[in-house]
Amino acid sequence: MNSRLFSFVAGETGPWHIERVLAVKGESLAAAPCLDVIPSVTSGEEPGRGRLPPMWALRGITSNERYVTHEEKRSLVAKQQGLGRPDSTCAALIPIRKSEAWWALSQDERRKILEDRSAHIRIGLNYLPAIARRLHHCRDLGTPEPFDFITWFEFAPADIPAFDRLLGELRASEEWQYVEREVDVRLVRK
Amino acid sequence: MNSRLFSFVAGETGPWHIERVLAVKGESLAAAPCLDVIPSVTSGEEPGRGRLPPMWALRGITSNERYVTHEEKRSLVAKQQGLGRPDSTCAALIPIRKSEAWWALSQDERRKILEDRSAHIRIGLNYLPAIARRLHHCRDLGTPEPFDFITWFEFAPADIPAFDRLLGELRASEEWQYVEREVDVRLVRK
Repeated sequence: MNSRLFSFVAGETGPWHIERVLAVKGESLAAAPCLDVIPSVTSGEEPGRGRLPPMWALRGITSNERYVTHEEKRSLVAKQQGLGRPDSTCAALIPIRKSEAWWALSQDERRKILEDRSAHIRIGLNYLPAIARRLHHCRDLGTPEPFDFITWFEFAPADIPAFDRLLGELRASEEWQYVEREVDVRLVRK
Repeated sequence: MNSRLFSFVAGETGPWHIERVLAVKGESLAAAPCLDVIPSVTSGEEPGRGRLPPMWALRGITSNERYVTHEEKRSLVAKQQGLGRPDSTCAALIPIRKSEAWWALSQDERRKILEDRSAHIRIGLNYLPAIARRLHHCRDLGTPEPFDFITWFEFAPADIPAFDRLLGELRASEEWQYVEREVDVRLVRK
């Protein structure tokens, strides 16, 4: 058991109805009716054991912050709310993969692109607390994973336009030039 | 297959003879005669399949740099040499685990402790090219791992005193106050 590991399992069952799967960049994911978010499935286990085989399953692990400063963390913690709010009946699952060029950059170069020039942290902060999020890392799981990150977002239906603006701002940034695959999966709670 | 993943397998076979296992902090690892370093064993596979069961096996994955700046990277790349040098007949395997307090710090706080106040990168640079090293991450593999990092060092017998000084400088640093488990395994090539 690893309480930081989550599986996103698409198939015939699950509490989230998949409304749309959009390939933003690169290959898409298969259409599927439902999604389940399963915590604490260790690498050796099959997610969703005993059910119908999933149409696809992605895994990611929450981890320490890689770019956020002390002051930014204070601002985020003060404004953010958790997942699972009753009125957050909309969700988005956005897996991305970044290029080898991104991963070859040094820490200060990545921070400069991500925040100084792309305002990734500030943009996210602007949409708190409406848009709640949890970031999962996939690149260092030790298994061949199709994406580097999976972000799970939750929000109320009235905040769908705000969420689309948030994505538009990020996708227009210099940082996003390093994104070589991105899929945008939208969901509604059953 | 993941070319960044390595297994360190202790048992009856392997090209490295284990000379000493020392618990620096916290629980030790079992004594064993030999060690093998096996690349590209995916999470689902058993390391060293078909051999005698290992006495212990640790896994880690190389990854992007987490703290090094562009200038530091240039200095490191200019001075460092790879593993596998014919005269590097000595090795050390040093797995460590850091505390939850370390992982809860923001990126800038960790950088300040690691380099501004503990000179971790500068200390390592001082011992290049004599002490070659490869850092492996374990914390985000998605399986319960006993350590957060495994560092593998290679050097010539004449550089054993220098290597001991390097470890002494790191262990005396503020950063090492966050280390809650450390084992120091010394090896000689057969």
